[in-house]
Amino acid sequence: MRIDIITVQPGLLESPFSHSILKRAQAKGLLEIQVHNLRDYSTFKHNQVDDYQFGGGAGMVMMMEPVINAIELLQAKTTYDEVIYLTPDGATLNQSMANQLSLKGNLLLLCGHYKGIDERIREHFITMEISIGDYVLSGGELAAAVLVDAIGRLIPGVLNDETSALFDSFQDHLLAPPVYTRPEEFRGWKVPEVLLSGDHRKIEDWRHTQALERTQQRRPDLLK
Amino acid sequence: MRIDIITVQPGLLESPFSHSILKRAQAKGLLEIQVHNLRDYSTFKHNQVDDYQFGGGAGMVMMMEPVINAIELLQAKTTYDEVIYLTPDGATLNQSMANQLSLKGNLLLLCGHYKGIDERIREHFITMEISIGDYVLSGGELAAAVLVDAIGRLIPGVLNDETSALFDSFQDHLLAPPVYTRPEEFRGWKVPEVLLSGDHRKIEDWRHTQALERTQQRRPDLLK
Repeated sequence: MRIDIITVQPGLLESPFSHSILKRAQAKGLLEIQVHNLRDYSTFKHNQVDDYQFGGGAGMVMMMEPVINAIELLQAKTTYDEVIYLTPDGATLNQSMANQLSLKGNLLLLCGHYKGIDERIREHFITMEISIGDYVLSGGELAAAVLVDAIGRLIPGVLNDETSALFDSFQDHLLAPPVYTRPEEFRGWKVPEVLLSGDHRKIEDWRHTQALERTQQRRPDLLK
Repeated sequence: MRIDIITVQPGLLESPFSHSILKRAQAKGLLEIQVHNLRDYSTFKHNQVDDYQFGGGAGMVMMMEPVINAIELLQAKTTYDEVIYLTPDGATLNQSMANQLSLKGNLLLLCGHYKGIDERIREHFITMEISIGDYVLSGGELAAAVLVDAIGRLIPGVLNDETSALFDSFQDHLLAPPVYTRPEEFRGWKVPEVLLSGDHRKIEDWRHTQALERTQQRRPDLLK
């Protein structure tokens, strides 16, 4: 899979893509990530990319020309399955969306910044708008990093143990059950006995019950 | 505000905290962020911080001793309003939660990794569990970055124009209206005329109608 990202803050994305699982995914050749500085695509003085909004009001708006220039130059080299704009008013990201996107070949992500992008870019170039949650961030960069991480870890071969992702929260509409490791007892706090029983059938039953109870208690909406 | 973060991937958090608005917030002295490497708090050989889970199954679990050691050493120096664990089964972050957290003095964030942390840490040390959305990430680091960004930009004085955040999506339970900037026309795509009218009353009415329509269309749940 190849992911291109257009941003005014390329430096912000350096460390998330060069550590942990995303680093491994790239090293294994399973994922290619290219970050593009929007300013390099500006045709204006001082590499301008934003301007005041029509109608007045606080906050700058990202201009059409640099963004469209970047999208069209990248599209000339690569065919993208989706051109995704990260925005708080997009469709809310969930695990099923991440699963589907992890099956795509090439994605182009556009990070908003300031007050957002000129609406006409959204109308004519964006094929999918995604929000990572009901809150506002300084820009779309962290949202892009979250999206790439959520997708990247699902690409077959990226996680060491492929079965691991299948038992994550949300994959079966249930939250994950509690987990414990050594020591068995610490300050008087003990591991539930069933987990020490060696009875795998019993352990599976306990985990399922715990997952169900936790979901009922914390996120009954997931069970609907 | 002071935010301490405990993680096994301190390097992953370098660039998000050293760019853009979070960089400015720290430079202005309005926000102090300290990232702590969990391995520095391990009392085991090779700075071990995780182990196999009791009961079997894929994925490692973060051990109690290093995490508790880190929390207690940090708590000896600073009084925290909340000790927050970033986890997919936590309460889903939204703008109102971000608003409330931006009023706090000191926060301690714990990033999960691998299969999560030993449940006993959650029972005895964590005061608040937060999820940034219904999807699974490689670890809590990006979730912590998102939380710090969502909170940090709300601290008074951090944004250049304080009124800007007040008109963001979600602040009034409405998505933001579309925005436009120069040029007025590009490839035949025009800016809505009302925005060029100079009639501020009309422009405000138009924006409110657009915000309402967009919310009804995309996120009717926000209007309930």
